[in-house]
Amino acid sequence: MSIFQIKKNIDTYLEEYFKNKGTYNKLIYESMAYSVNIGGKRIRPILLLLTYEMYQQDIHKVMPMAAAIEMIHTYSLIHDDLPSMDNDDLRRGKPTNHKVFGEAIAILAGDGLLNEAMNIMINFSIDNGIRALKASKIISEAASADGMIGGQVVDILNEGKNIYEDELRYMHLKKTGEIIKASILAGAVLGGAPEEHINLLSEFGEKLGLAFQIKDDILDVIGSTEKLGKNVKSDIYNNKTNFVTVYGVGKCKQLCESLTNRCIEILNELPLNSSNLRKITIELLNREF
Amino acid sequence: MSIFQIKKNIDTYLEEYFKNKGTYNKLIYESMAYSVNIGGKRIRPILLLLTYEMYQQDIHKVMPMAAAIEMIHTYSLIHDDLPSMDNDDLRRGKPTNHKVFGEAIAILAGDGLLNEAMNIMINFSIDNGIRALKASKIISEAASADGMIGGQVVDILNEGKNIYEDELRYMHLKKTGEIIKASILAGAVLGGAPEEHINLLSEFGEKLGLAFQIKDDILDVIGSTEKLGKNVKSDIYNNKTNFVTVYGVGKCKQLCESLTNRCIEILNELPLNSSNLRKITIELLNREF
Repeated sequence: MSIFQIKKNIDTYLEEYFKNKGTYNKLIYESMAYSVNIGGKRIRPILLLLTYEMYQQDIHKVMPMAAAIEMIHTYSLIHDDLPSMDNDDLRRGKPTNHKVFGEAIAILAGDGLLNEAMNIMINFSIDNGIRALKASKIISEAASADGMIGGQVVDILNEGKNIYEDELRYMHLKKTGEIIKASILAGAVLGGAPEEHINLLSEFGEKLGLAFQIKDDILDVIGSTEKLGKNVKSDIYNNKTNFVTVYGVGKCKQLCESLTNRCIEILNELPLNSSNLRKITIELLNREF
Repeated sequence: MSIFQIKKNIDTYLEEYFKNKGTYNKLIYESMAYSVNIGGKRIRPILLLLTYEMYQQDIHKVMPMAAAIEMIHTYSLIHDDLPSMDNDDLRRGKPTNHKVFGEAIAILAGDGLLNEAMNIMINFSIDNGIRALKASKIISEAASADGMIGGQVVDILNEGKNIYEDELRYMHLKKTGEIIKASILAGAVLGGAPEEHINLLSEFGEKLGLAFQIKDDILDVIGSTEKLGKNVKSDIYNNKTNFVTVYGVGKCKQLCESLTNRCIEILNELPLNSSNLRKITIELLNREF
């Protein structure tokens, strides 16, 4: 299946997911669905499915797990955009959740999405046993206070001051990298990948996540609001340290390329058909949004 | 073991849990630990452990699950107290989380606690199998957009207008009742209770949760800020409908008593030693905070 078709299937699954849900609480599902279905790139669920696809045929089987990881990603965006955090009013070219539903509902929609991901992973594990449970552990821990949330905390603390490279790396590895890496590892574990592949894919995920974040930092400086669908130069505006403010655009582009090259090398080491995964790795390097 | 001793064990477990956690992200653990260890009544984990205790000896074994449910409860309080929600500055006699750590960290601390509960339940399920997984499902779904979060949404929508009894019941059953009921059912499932007990305990949990919430509404009117550790008359102040504004204090007290009586009846129907569970049921009716 093409990456394009896989993305379409994820979109459809997520649209269907929230249909006709709720009674008196209907508004919370509308708010959750609004942010989930506003048109993300679906990178994390795509990575999970493409990794799984190297080991198993029927990728539709693990679609719930892919959806769960996208819900976690979306909840983190809703909360990041809040007035007390980044105070963004634009996301994916549309008004942010709290601009449409108000702050209280936006906070609860974020909570609801994290919780929904938990429901999905637990139910999937009841039906599919220990591999599903281990994949759930990878995703859950990647999202936690020692993972994505931890990165976001350091990002907030970092506002308005200079931080050292160590802390910057920590922030980026955690804030974006952990969930990207978890998408890949969860796909591998669900697919039944052998231990030696897990180690290689772990390095792959870490490097891809770092390249992804550095590219984000580059686009924040040289990208356009129109293409990105969010306000640019937000880090400069918020006086935040990022890879570009530390190394400059040129060095960051080099870093991105060498990380991507290593990612491709790793895929070549795997005795599997990784053409789709290779393709998306290169797309992520060259993306303009 | 006495209820008092069980509560002390829960307190100790939760205090230990957050010790020496974090590096650059240390602040998030401080914020999470602040609200968890500020001195709650621990009703939900106590109910889980006392129900489990009717079926199994070693209650310490399921302490992680009890801790997870208290973390979910605490996260909901942190988010409820936020300026965009109830805007409370006092909780358990201390400044609320956002008053101490600021709004951004308070939101992330809530997220972190929900996520930590997920980590705990998944890890516990990996070690303990299907019973643990089914108990996790009960807890996770009770907390979700169709459970506790749904109740909170209706509570927010209800501010400043009159709602009908149906919607009021929905709100209370969901907002407080679902997690109380889930504590009991999760304890029962973890303990291996037979199906016919689950049905009885389900009714017990629902009635206990409703009595608990009505009592809360009564205390909001006739209680003291000093004893409750939170501001009283908040529903009147926020122009919210609750059981007392609909039925008056006298009728609410009657309702509470009849619900409690039915709870005791159910416990009497179980061929088990339920003395601790009976004791806490009566304590909850008579509590002054």
